[in-house]
Amino acid sequence: MTVRNIIRTIIVETPSKPGNLGKVATAIGMAGGDIGDITTIKVGPLSTVRDITVHCESKEQLDAVIQSIQSLENGIYVHAVSDDVLRAHEGGKIQMKSRMDIRSLADLRRVYTPGVADVCRVIQDDPDKARYYTSIGNTVAIVTDGTAILGLGNIGSLAGMPVMEGKAALFDRFAGISGIPILLNTSDPDEVVNTIKKIYQGFGGILLEDIGSPHCFEIEERLKEELPIPVMHDDQHGTAVVTLAAVISACRSTGVDLKDAVVGQIGLGAAGLAICRMFMAYGVKEMCGVDRQEAALERLRRYGGTVLQSIEELMEHCDIVIATTGVPGLIKPEMVRKGQVILALSNPKPEITPAEAVKAGAAFAADGRSVNNVLGFPGIFRGVLNAGAKEITHSMLVAAAQAIADCTASGELVPHPLDPKVHVEVARAVERVAEREMEMEPAL
Amino acid sequence: MTVRNIIRTIIVETPSKPGNLGKVATAIGMAGGDIGDITTIKVGPLSTVRDITVHCESKEQLDAVIQSIQSLENGIYVHAVSDDVLRAHEGGKIQMKSRMDIRSLADLRRVYTPGVADVCRVIQDDPDKARYYTSIGNTVAIVTDGTAILGLGNIGSLAGMPVMEGKAALFDRFAGISGIPILLNTSDPDEVVNTIKKIYQGFGGILLEDIGSPHCFEIEERLKEELPIPVMHDDQHGTAVVTLAAVISACRSTGVDLKDAVVGQIGLGAAGLAICRMFMAYGVKEMCGVDRQEAALERLRRYGGTVLQSIEELMEHCDIVIATTGVPGLIKPEMVRKGQVILALSNPKPEITPAEAVKAGAAFAADGRSVNNVLGFPGIFRGVLNAGAKEITHSMLVAAAQAIADCTASGELVPHPLDPKVHVEVARAVERVAEREMEMEPAL
Repeated sequence: MTVRNIIRTIIVETPSKPGNLGKVATAIGMAGGDIGDITTIKVGPLSTVRDITVHCESKEQLDAVIQSIQSLENGIYVHAVSDDVLRAHEGGKIQMKSRMDIRSLADLRRVYTPGVADVCRVIQDDPDKARYYTSIGNTVAIVTDGTAILGLGNIGSLAGMPVMEGKAALFDRFAGISGIPILLNTSDPDEVVNTIKKIYQGFGGILLEDIGSPHCFEIEERLKEELPIPVMHDDQHGTAVVTLAAVISACRSTGVDLKDAVVGQIGLGAAGLAICRMFMAYGVKEMCGVDRQEAALERLRRYGGTVLQSIEELMEHCDIVIATTGVPGLIKPEMVRKGQVILALSNPKPEITPAEAVKAGAAFAADGRSVNNVLGFPGIFRGVLNAGAKEITHSMLVAAAQAIADCTASGELVPHPLDPKVHVEVARAVERVAEREMEMEPAL
Repeated sequence: MTVRNIIRTIIVETPSKPGNLGKVATAIGMAGGDIGDITTIKVGPLSTVRDITVHCESKEQLDAVIQSIQSLENGIYVHAVSDDVLRAHEGGKIQMKSRMDIRSLADLRRVYTPGVADVCRVIQDDPDKARYYTSIGNTVAIVTDGTAILGLGNIGSLAGMPVMEGKAALFDRFAGISGIPILLNTSDPDEVVNTIKKIYQGFGGILLEDIGSPHCFEIEERLKEELPIPVMHDDQHGTAVVTLAAVISACRSTGVDLKDAVVGQIGLGAAGLAICRMFMAYGVKEMCGVDRQEAALERLRRYGGTVLQSIEELMEHCDIVIATTGVPGLIKPEMVRKGQVILALSNPKPEITPAEAVKAGAAFAADGRSVNNVLGFPGIFRGVLNAGAKEITHSMLVAAAQAIADCTASGELVPHPLDPKVHVEVARAVERVAEREMEMEPAL
């Protein structure tokens, strides 16, 4: 039997008349493709759309199959060819659902007019009641301008939608939060801030996502200042929370006292600077950093960190080293100090491999594969939404990192992201700090 | 046994320490309230929130119960007192859900990083693919500025959220569409248009909702012109679709030929003007209107309608009369012409009651209770989204009205809104017209 190692799903539209599927199936067979499942996606009055799974031996054969279908013409179109990963994303990963069934006119009158008017009046009289009688208090906008989508760069917010939907799916799965992707088609800080300010009332919080540096700093700072709801840029602070958690675990494994340690950060981009701020909020002895850009160093100075002159100096001076430069092999084995803890987080290739670092004398080393943001943001927002907090403070984020570290099994760097306990514990830790802070400084 | 005719749910927060619920229960009993169900809503590290159902004899007793709980102090708070309708809205009516389960690391890698990067690249290369690999093509923004919420007027978009959530719940229930409430805190047409233009990419369509007149006209027209996705103001065109459907049914019952009829519209606000445009698109013999405002009359002239001088003239001249003035009793029985079809749609009190109108000689009369927008918008958007249409045309809306009328049982004005058939038929009718129009004028 021939090995057919390419499986693709072809989305084909045909006129809604008998005989057209036969033509398509024949065309596929003539080109050498095997047909697997056929699923009807849409039957319209004029046209029908089907998913046809096709097995091929090679990319060339797949191309021939597609060419063969397309040459049929007469209203027969190939809309898309998808693979397994793409299949999982077909139709999108999220859907807004009604939380209640609507089975009778009485239900309809309660959910919609005229019953809903009472609820509107209650909120009109006391806007704070919106927290109880709408979904706003459980809803977070996932806002991107598409300028720094994953490691793909500035590909635009439309192409970033699968990431935003992924975040929304994780919000639902791990924290029961409604995540609403908001795709901006501007990255100008003024326009971003003004747009969000015009629509913020529908949300209980704002998660900024995959917004590039340095405009992410201004956008986050201004939104935090000007909006009465919690705002967090996940690429900065979500990453920093999980990094701090990993370092707490690493210190525990190696017997290093983190509060008495000198920590060095190589690379002061959005994540790097946030990591520095997180460790300073945690209370390390000294936080040092290096970067090639003077603006980045100036930001570190402003937050109270120590600017060093070179990677060599940093490696010499620091007990714990974190790197987020994106430059593979930047840390040479001869720079490693005996007993150092080293987290080289750049993906897919780290600044130094864990094996090299340990061989060179490091007490503990890890790369970025296990430092996954998903450990942080769902529980962090669950906690602040539960507390009704107006902002996310560094104390809450440090508490989140400590909760993640406390959920980590001995010998591991971080917990398994599917462990429900970690999200519950992060939420509880954040809520506890939020409630204490609100008691100390009650909202006006 | 005492009749206890007031049932309320009291949301009470207490410190998370034993004994506090006992204090609350005692306080309720001391004030004469009976306790029903108690449901724990949230157990936080510091405080616990519970729903306590309380039965009382009078409003005064209820007040005494609440006062009694509040006087406990020491961290015990009454957050809200809700009734049955409000209960149904607690926590909001909608929630964003993941469409797939995430049970393994493999699932996580497919839904989120690193798998999601492939999907982003596919859309980056061909933005049209976003229709297949994201939820955008199934998502409609429900946009309000809060200036005309139901009959409540300009109460602000936050207080209008229960209506927007209701629409989203109905979108889900009747058409499987993800409806996303967007609450604007501006009603300036420039700002509204600019804000929507900055975020439109995440949506397959825009439903404008409860936006006041006359700024609703400019906002809808500009968005229709400047956005490449379908836009519809439901208070205008959704209402007009259902009104046309009702009149088609009424004409069928009474043997009137609608295409040969002279139709009169009393009141040319947002709904009234849209009704005129809908009947002209349907192709009636003549469309007449009256209004007290010259600007409204000028709009009718611009769209090709006949401006009449008075209600008396309109009642004299027209075979079919529709009124949307909000003025009860505006149509006097002596104005009614024998054999006329009269729909007096103002809620809660019509311009003339059906009984009065029929007594005065009308062949058919109805008020606004049965003309419910829910018959239109879910299927209309399902149809245009299925077709991938870039706009909603009057031909599609007329087809929707005809489909609603075709689903109406003999003797009824409109179908039951919970009948799933009507929404399917509206969607098919709209999709059919949309596909024909796109064939005639293919998208660029």
